[in-house]
Amino acid sequence: MRLLVINGPNLNLLGRREPELYGTDTLYDIEIMLTKKFPDLKFEFYQSNSEGVLVDYLQKGMSRAFDGVILNAGAYTHNSYALRDAVAALKIPVIELHLSNVYAREEFRRRSVIAPVCRGIIAGFGAQSYELAVRALLNIVQK
Amino acid sequence: MRLLVINGPNLNLLGRREPELYGTDTLYDIEIMLTKKFPDLKFEFYQSNSEGVLVDYLQKGMSRAFDGVILNAGAYTHNSYALRDAVAALKIPVIELHLSNVYAREEFRRRSVIAPVCRGIIAGFGAQSYELAVRALLNIVQK
Amino acid sequence: MRLLVINGPNLNLLGRREPELYGTDTLYDIEIMLTKKFPDLKFEFYQSNSEGVLVDYLQKGMSRAFDGVILNAGAYTHNSYALRDAVAALKIPVIELHLSNVYAREEFRRRSVIAPVCRGIIAGFGAQSYELAVRALLNIVQK
Amino acid sequence: MRLLVINGPNLNLLGRREPELYGTDTLYDIEIMLTKKFPDLKFEFYQSNSEGVLVDYLQKGMSRAFDGVILNAGAYTHNSYALRDAVAALKIPVIELHLSNVYAREEFRRRSVIAPVCRGIIAGFGAQSYELAVRALLNIVQK
Amino acid sequence: MRLLVINGPNLNLLGRREPELYGTDTLYDIEIMLTKKFPDLKFEFYQSNSEGVLVDYLQKGMSRAFDGVILNAGAYTHNSYALRDAVAALKIPVIELHLSNVYAREEFRRRSVIAPVCRGIIAGFGAQSYELAVRALLNIVQK
Amino acid sequence: MRLLVINGPNLNLLGRREPELYGTDTLYDIEIMLTKKFPDLKFEFYQSNSEGVLVDYLQKGMSRAFDGVILNAGAYTHNSYALRDAVAALKIPVIELHLSNVYAREEFRRRSVIAPVCRGIIAGFGAQSYELAVRALLNIVQK
Amino acid sequence: MRLLVINGPNLNLLGRREPELYGTDTLYDIEIMLTKKFPDLKFEFYQSNSEGVLVDYLQKGMSRAFDGVILNAGAYTHNSYALRDAVAALKIPVIELHLSNVYAREEFRRRSVIAPVCRGIIAGFGAQSYELAVRALLNIVQK
Amino acid sequence: MRLLVINGPNLNLLGRREPELYGTDTLYDIEIMLTKKFPDLKFEFYQSNSEGVLVDYLQKGMSRAFDGVILNAGAYTHNSYALRDAVAALKIPVIELHLSNVYAREEFRRRSVIAPVCRGIIAGFGAQSYELAVRALLNIVQK
Amino acid sequence: MRLLVINGPNLNLLGRREPELYGTDTLYDIEIMLTKKFPDLKFEFYQSNSEGVLVDYLQKGMSRAFDGVILNAGAYTHNSYALRDAVAALKIPVIELHLSNVYAREEFRRRSVIAPVCRGIIAGFGAQSYELAVRALLNIVQK
Amino acid sequence: MRLLVINGPNLNLLGRREPELYGTDTLYDIEIMLTKKFPDLKFEFYQSNSEGVLVDYLQKGMSRAFDGVILNAGAYTHNSYALRDAVAALKIPVIELHLSNVYAREEFRRRSVIAPVCRGIIAGFGAQSYELAVRALLNIVQK
Amino acid sequence: MRLLVINGPNLNLLGRREPELYGTDTLYDIEIMLTKKFPDLKFEFYQSNSEGVLVDYLQKGMSRAFDGVILNAGAYTHNSYALRDAVAALKIPVIELHLSNVYAREEFRRRSVIAPVCRGIIAGFGAQSYELAVRALLNIVQK
Amino acid sequence: MRLLVINGPNLNLLGRREPELYGTDTLYDIEIMLTKKFPDLKFEFYQSNSEGVLVDYLQKGMSRAFDGVILNAGAYTHNSYALRDAVAALKIPVIELHLSNVYAREEFRRRSVIAPVCRGIIAGFGAQSYELAVRALLNIVQK
Repeated sequence: MRLLVINGPNLNLLGRREPELYGTDTLYDIEIMLTKKFPDLKFEFYQSNSEGVLVDYLQKGMSRAFDGVILNAGAYTHNSYALRDAVAALKIPVIELHLSNVYAREEFRRRSVIAPVCRGIIAGFGAQSYELAVRALLNIVQK
Repeated sequence: MRLLVINGPNLNLLGRREPELYGTDTLYDIEIMLTKKFPDLKFEFYQSNSEGVLVDYLQKGMSRAFDGVILNAGAYTHNSYALRDAVAALKIPVIELHLSNVYAREEFRRRSVIAPVCRGIIAGFGAQSYELAVRALLNIVQK
Repeated sequence: MRLLVINGPNLNLLGRREPELYGTDTLYDIEIMLTKKFPDLKFEFYQSNSEGVLVDYLQKGMSRAFDGVILNAGAYTHNSYALRDAVAALKIPVIELHLSNVYAREEFRRRSVIAPVCRGIIAGFGAQSYELAVRALLNIVQK
Repeated sequence: MRLLVINGPNLNLLGRREPELYGTDTLYDIEIMLTKKFPDLKFEFYQSNSEGVLVDYLQKGMSRAFDGVILNAGAYTHNSYALRDAVAALKIPVIELHLSNVYAREEFRRRSVIAPVCRGIIAGFGAQSYELAVRALLNIVQK
Repeated sequence: MRLLVINGPNLNLLGRREPELYGTDTLYDIEIMLTKKFPDLKFEFYQSNSEGVLVDYLQKGMSRAFDGVILNAGAYTHNSYALRDAVAALKIPVIELHLSNVYAREEFRRRSVIAPVCRGIIAGFGAQSYELAVRALLNIVQK
Repeated sequence: MRLLVINGPNLNLLGRREPELYGTDTLYDIEIMLTKKFPDLKFEFYQSNSEGVLVDYLQKGMSRAFDGVILNAGAYTHNSYALRDAVAALKIPVIELHLSNVYAREEFRRRSVIAPVCRGIIAGFGAQSYELAVRALLNIVQK
Repeated sequence: MRLLVINGPNLNLLGRREPELYGTDTLYDIEIMLTKKFPDLKFEFYQSNSEGVLVDYLQKGMSRAFDGVILNAGAYTHNSYALRDAVAALKIPVIELHLSNVYAREEFRRRSVIAPVCRGIIAGFGAQSYELAVRALLNIVQK
Repeated sequence: MRLLVINGPNLNLLGRREPELYGTDTLYDIEIMLTKKFPDLKFEFYQSNSEGVLVDYLQKGMSRAFDGVILNAGAYTHNSYALRDAVAALKIPVIELHLSNVYAREEFRRRSVIAPVCRGIIAGFGAQSYELAVRALLNIVQK
Repeated sequence: MRLLVINGPNLNLLGRREPELYGTDTLYDIEIMLTKKFPDLKFEFYQSNSEGVLVDYLQKGMSRAFDGVILNAGAYTHNSYALRDAVAALKIPVIELHLSNVYAREEFRRRSVIAPVCRGIIAGFGAQSYELAVRALLNIVQK
Repeated sequence: MRLLVINGPNLNLLGRREPELYGTDTLYDIEIMLTKKFPDLKFEFYQSNSEGVLVDYLQKGMSRAFDGVILNAGAYTHNSYALRDAVAALKIPVIELHLSNVYAREEFRRRSVIAPVCRGIIAGFGAQSYELAVRALLNIVQK
Repeated sequence: MRLLVINGPNLNLLGRREPELYGTDTLYDIEIMLTKKFPDLKFEFYQSNSEGVLVDYLQKGMSRAFDGVILNAGAYTHNSYALRDAVAALKIPVIELHLSNVYAREEFRRRSVIAPVCRGIIAGFGAQSYELAVRALLNIVQK
Repeated sequence: MRLLVINGPNLNLLGRREPELYGTDTLYDIEIMLTKKFPDLKFEFYQSNSEGVLVDYLQKGMSRAFDGVILNAGAYTHNSYALRDAVAALKIPVIELHLSNVYAREEFRRRSVIAPVCRGIIAGFGAQSYELAVRALLNIVQK
């Protein structure tokens, strides 16, 4: 089983940026954690600050044999209709993920234009959000 | 470790009500599934159609030794400030949970007045949402 | 043929509360009027001030052999998504009913969150609204 | 007793237009049904696609001896302040009527600018809506 | 002179819940304080977390000989049209009361759907708010 | 000097319709009053309940030698973009007129979509509004 | 007969400020024009840039024997509830006046918080607006 | 192949009204241009300033053998639900057309209540818009 | 103990202005009432119709030894950010006061831009509102 | 004559993505179709998923000798002010194009921030939209 | 070169009011700083808490030989159309200035009704904002 | 001292694009001007049309020794939450800058989602805006 894990803008700063909000784990720490916890799965990890490049990544997922996508679209969550369209074009399940509880922050973070075309949403559990999303995908695919 | 699992209005119909949307598992099936998957944990399960009774349950959680709460507030999610206040009064972590992807349905279901005072949100994974929420609580409490 | 007639908050005050607006008939007068006008039908009448209890009543309607429901949800009409979900879960026709013309009163009374999942709406005819609703249900069921 | 039955835009297409929504009865079928069901009443039926002509009809109702008006204003329901003013100028009771449940359709159909100056509203019962409206008027006039 | 003092959801937690916001007095402390300060008055105190039960209490106030009502509707203040209708049906004066300054908190707390049908509003003085409300009622009744 | 006086929907009822609001003068009384007060001017008076016919009248004003237009668009004031466009196409001055103070009535009457393309507005003076509008036009034309 | 003519902020600049919009007449020119046109009337003219001083002037109108007020509140028209209250407290008729057509300018100028408590509105006729307002007051008072 | 070309309010003024915006071609010029460019097609051209008459025309299109409709609804584009319903009742393709770029003008012109039930939209190309619409219809019908 | 009592626009008319709404007591009557009821306290009373002068008064309160402020900002309550800033700059408690129940009147009166920076709010008790506010301040200061 | 044809995000998926909505033609098919239909014209075709790269392309159009631009901005249509500014900076005509009827889809697709600075809009005709846009540009340039 | 520096409500408290937000410099300190830094310029400094007086000051700037205005309108920034009109009437450049970053504070502070008629805006640099504004004016005037 | 100067979309066109709005200086002219005016400072200049690349640049500023950032985000100012997050992650001061007075242009340009996390804002002074921003940063850093 192959999973695509896509992270959006400013997530490359993870661990250094506002650690009281996002924790001290880096994206790399999360990759290692996932690889250890799920040794039987194959992951591909991407990060980009560019909306268009994230669309490219999601589209690549179309042509290759992935079974599911985990998408932390960062600040693009709130206004990227281009990402929404790219997700809607995928036939495999996509899970929207956030490290922090976006509903407990600024008003604009409560709106996701991508969530309506995703399978489900997980938010607020820091690095563990990724582990939960993988479990959710495993379960969906096994059905 | 003790967890309180609270379900709101119309969730007693689970399995019979719009199964294409909510699945065929009943609340009781979910209770059994959780008990089997997490044999070391102690669960208490409540369901009520009444906002006030749900507030009562949450408050009881204050005085007894619970380590966390899983709250599927159903349709009260969208406008119950009383539940919000009850959650805010708790000192243990509360996770908001939905069976379906509420963001892919009617406009009014995208708004949660409770989420801002919860620790995190899990939505869209059917009965598995409960399992993921338990895992999330386990992780939070163990920290 | 069996019909369920459910009345919401403050309707137990009917006849005593603002009679210039709601008339001098009590709920009991209406029950008697219906029983007399439709001697061949079987009615069950409920009233409660509690949103959750009204949800309970509607659900009981699921398990027993009713042919239709008349629902005067009173002030819960305007914001009870829990009642909406309970109505949506029913497979028999539900008619939303109001004694007064709710469109000629305060702004907030013009919005019904329940109407979109009902079969039809009757408002503004005082006690006669109930008689009209019964006739409407009769007609629907006979088709 | 004389009743005026006024139908607005596109209702002349009844029976041919989206029958799954509006039924297969034509306006003429409804006229015949009413005449049969209420042989003691005198009806005048008008239909027009023009807002101004509908205003003219309503005004004619002022000078002749009508006892009540049934108004299906069709799409003018949602934005015709001219019809609203014409209704408000009448001293006899006016009932707003819709064939379909307008609350279960597009957002703009939930707003009626005419309802606040009518006596009551009946919506969602197809051709039977007209019969119910006649009964309601009979009752109001007899008081 | 008899006064009815009704407290809404989560107010049973008073003294234990966010004391920096609501103070350390419990509801019971407030009852004792009022009884001491106004030995000539007769009070009845109710608290419930349920909207419907609060409606019941207010209605009971109709049939018994009360001279006024003090209503701290808690979170129901902001969206309970059922409580609003129950207050509007009373003929004795009702005062809306809040312990904290609700205007200095979240946006949603600034809206009261009950205030328009009350006699007056007192907010922000902690336990003393109740004493001020009693004085206000005394004065109104004595006129 | 020739002036065109155009009256919109329901103004043919003037004198009979809600006289406490609109006065007891009929449109014909106003025509006579204007003709007497301004014997040197030539007036043409039109009234119609139809938006399209009012557009026709305004357009006829284009091809004939009129020096100004007085327009009481009645309820079309608030939403007729077609009348707005017809006014905008005229090169002679147009004055928007209302008998009652539209700002002291329902919310929807405060918005005029025609006023932005008129020369000026006069509202609230009953039949005298017409006399004031004629004086205003006289002054504009004489400049 | 005595009339009070009150002008608000920046109207002292009349004739010098944006003459293409407001004309080249000064306030003083308008005073002279009114005095000449209506030699039998007594006028008092005030101008102030201060909201509070305008309230003072309007109040003075209460205690002295004025028959009517002409109020050009300038930019305070759009948000001065204090002026609104002062107008509402007067028992003599008040006319709201604007030199320019405020509906053809910025969006915020279309809203008047004072108009709902005035007798009528005249806007868009430059200096002549004042003459028309005097005529309107004369007519009202003579009735 | 037969096409119906319907033009709404004020379009009879084409060529004379604001030519810098709408060009100097008259409706008649456009008819001739279309007839010349598409000699094999049969056109019927209607224009009316009345919403109801435009509804009539569209309905006539139902009963006769037309293959498509070109609709320039003018100012009715923005608020005519009656035209929307008439278009929705047609089974042949309808194209919404505008001479000017309505998105570059007043805010209210950006909203079309008819477009959601049309096949496509063409706006901004002056008289050529009609030619493009015919080509589009040809293509649709030939499929 | 010294208290500052500040009254805003049109409150100098108290007793004469709409007595059915505001009562027949004048501001002076209220001053005398307070002085009698609280002989041990020192009061300073100000009234002004000018927003800026009210800001001045509040600031004077900073430099002199006052223990609290009672502020009836009248119509400035609803839009004066300048008064809000002046209140926020004070370190002594400020109570917002209204004679009438502002929530039962026009929509715009329900919004207070000053309340968020006050200690508490008292509204709806006529002249007695002042007495209650003094008691509230006494209690706050004594803590 | 040289034309620039720019396609935005996810349009590279054309033919594979939701073919029932967008058709089965690929972008490449459309390029070939245009080249065949207009053998005398020179086209340059670009596609990118990145907003910034699309801005780059549009700017390149400034420095090279293009006569017009066809822009299908995809999901960026609805919120890209950067593309709007880039279009506004061009001196050659730009046509906004959509394959589907964007007005018949989700609410957010009805808003275009780019259309106000384009020459015209064509939407809803699938691959033929491009052919129509080329014809429109030809016509504009030839004038 | 002469510059007018106008400060609005509560700015006389500068240095004493919320120094963590506004700094410890008083207005007088700022005057001295400006005079020292720009010994060749002539400044006139005004401060008032009254909107009308600020309008007066700005108007005085019209009649005297000033080359530019620096305006810190304080809380009047957000709703004073009177100040906006006064600024618009000036022919010399006006710069809007704020000590704090108004965009990082309450929502209402993000709106300026004056900025659209100013030359430029400087906000967030404390006392230095004044120095920057002087430099900006110098540059503008020298051009 | 090192400063990072980042320019967003379409600013590479400076000098060529709408010079009446943005002036004739190119970005390169501005770079030279800054280097000359502040010979002791070290500047790095970037421009990109891509939101993601601008985020990259801002992040690079984190890892290198910059003392401050000047950010002209162009059209991304109004909706780029990704840039906002990148600015919020920086610990050095960032100044938002605009060449034109964005408040005097289209409505959408008045909203900045970045300003709330910047230190200050400078807008409307053309190329000089950059000089002022450098002075502001100098002053902030020296403190």
